[in-house]
Amino acid sequence: MSGSAPQRAPVYGKVALIGLGLIASSLFWAMKRANLVGTVTGYARSQETRDTAREIGLCDEVCDSAAAACEGADLIVLCVPIGAMESVAQEIAPYLKKGATVTDVGSVKRAVIDAVGPHIPEGVHFIPGHPLAGTEHSGPRSGFAELFDNRWCLLVPVENSDAAAIAQLRALWEGVGSNVEEMDAEHHDLVLAVTSHAPHLIAYTMVGVADDLRRVTDSEVIKYSAAGFRDFTRIAASDPTMWRDVFLNNKEATLEILGRFTEELFALQRAIRTGDGDHLFDYFTHTRAIRRGIIEAGQDTDAPNFGRGKKDVK
Amino acid sequence: MSGSAPQRAPVYGKVALIGLGLIASSLFWAMKRANLVGTVTGYARSQETRDTAREIGLCDEVCDSAAAACEGADLIVLCVPIGAMESVAQEIAPYLKKGATVTDVGSVKRAVIDAVGPHIPEGVHFIPGHPLAGTEHSGPRSGFAELFDNRWCLLVPVENSDAAAIAQLRALWEGVGSNVEEMDAEHHDLVLAVTSHAPHLIAYTMVGVADDLRRVTDSEVIKYSAAGFRDFTRIAASDPTMWRDVFLNNKEATLEILGRFTEELFALQRAIRTGDGDHLFDYFTHTRAIRRGIIEAGQDTDAPNFGRGKKDVK
Repeated sequence: MSGSAPQRAPVYGKVALIGLGLIASSLFWAMKRANLVGTVTGYARSQETRDTAREIGLCDEVCDSAAAACEGADLIVLCVPIGAMESVAQEIAPYLKKGATVTDVGSVKRAVIDAVGPHIPEGVHFIPGHPLAGTEHSGPRSGFAELFDNRWCLLVPVENSDAAAIAQLRALWEGVGSNVEEMDAEHHDLVLAVTSHAPHLIAYTMVGVADDLRRVTDSEVIKYSAAGFRDFTRIAASDPTMWRDVFLNNKEATLEILGRFTEELFALQRAIRTGDGDHLFDYFTHTRAIRRGIIEAGQDTDAPNFGRGKKDVK
Repeated sequence: MSGSAPQRAPVYGKVALIGLGLIASSLFWAMKRANLVGTVTGYARSQETRDTAREIGLCDEVCDSAAAACEGADLIVLCVPIGAMESVAQEIAPYLKKGATVTDVGSVKRAVIDAVGPHIPEGVHFIPGHPLAGTEHSGPRSGFAELFDNRWCLLVPVENSDAAAIAQLRALWEGVGSNVEEMDAEHHDLVLAVTSHAPHLIAYTMVGVADDLRRVTDSEVIKYSAAGFRDFTRIAASDPTMWRDVFLNNKEATLEILGRFTEELFALQRAIRTGDGDHLFDYFTHTRAIRRGIIEAGQDTDAPNFGRGKKDVK
């Protein structure tokens, strides 16, 4: 094409990414794709991750300390596991510019607010966030610009969050392809316990059971995984550190949902044992309708072959 | 290209498909793709399904009775829910040609053998089978020729199954893209309880719980499903009749696996409650390795964006 996109002011001049895993690297590529920001600095605790980031051009500048990355930044995005949020917040606090915004991408919000909030200096905005997007991969090489396309990002403003600062952060997430909603921390943590945390624990458990069963070999489990188990293994391949921290920090809601899950599971097991086919049929018919809702909401594809093109089938 | 494929004899002259859902329709298109058989007749109990089949050209001839479809057939494939296998076998038995082979595609094998076996006439081969492939869709329109590509098909020969007849059936499944293995019925039912039946029941349960929770609305569950729950809903959208019959007919193995699952789940819940992060981390690290095995075995794609091309993201 001969024309160039109209010039517009970037949403943020300087953005600092603290932690350079799947979410941060995807955010970087997505911000660059849409030309949303000025410069992006990055920091990761591990030297190896920083070296990789430099090698693949992840961030305009990779810094050797979180403090250096944050200096002069208009937006600081904490992309570390939840258990590391507090120490990072403490470390960067003295270097935050007045008027800057600190956000995060953690999967639990109450715990992050409690851990990070007290360290945020006067005059700095704190707007927790959570992009509902991910894959089972992790690390600086796992990111891709399309990760957030048509996915939700939940913003969880705290008391006194500045409306203009929220609007600016919303513009960034929308710019990388997300749909944005606001929610309070407690409701967020319950909704995520249902849609993400409990399903992850269940998938981890099922994969563990399969692996543990002596009469069915590992190679059989792997060979015959396409029968349903495969989706569980994908979920159960997610980053162990991140997920350990999620469960430890969203304890009550996760345990509540798991309690309800066990109750329902026992009722279905009982129906199997007693041969109550009507109970099973009704239950399965009902759950099918929920799937239809997800397709209609555009959160998954209805393609009969799962979009499984020839190139994907190795 | 100017040349044509070398002529070769079809694997079977006439094939009858009894039941015209996802598996039968996929098998039809896959057999035609590879030019594996002569003519294919089909029968479905519902008039609507037969009308649809005629409309879309599914089968060379759609018959109005199972008996008519089977007449003169060299291979009869029973593609009905497990609970319907016995009555279908009884119905077609008088019309089976000497030397013909009867097979099936049911997800449970011991129950099918017990239900169908006694009705197979002298001189007719009975070789139960199970292609490990499927989607959450059902019905005559849901089939596609690629369904079996690089998926496993398990053959479960019964006592006195004829070696030549087994080889012929194997050639058909290989011809539609499958890898074929033989297995005995009891082991099959246990392996499938682990890789398919228990995961399906668990997914059904989790989706039911989500839908049942008053404080999280259905629309929230649907909107935020991308966070992990989505894969569960796909599994839990599978055909209710088929799955009711699977659970009722693979009771012991499924209940055994679910018992182990609950045990493990309780141990992980306890780790969450007591804050035992090491236990969680170790468990999650271990399950991640299993996923790697599946990728290496070519049973799923490792593409960082799940092969989620722009066309799939609506």
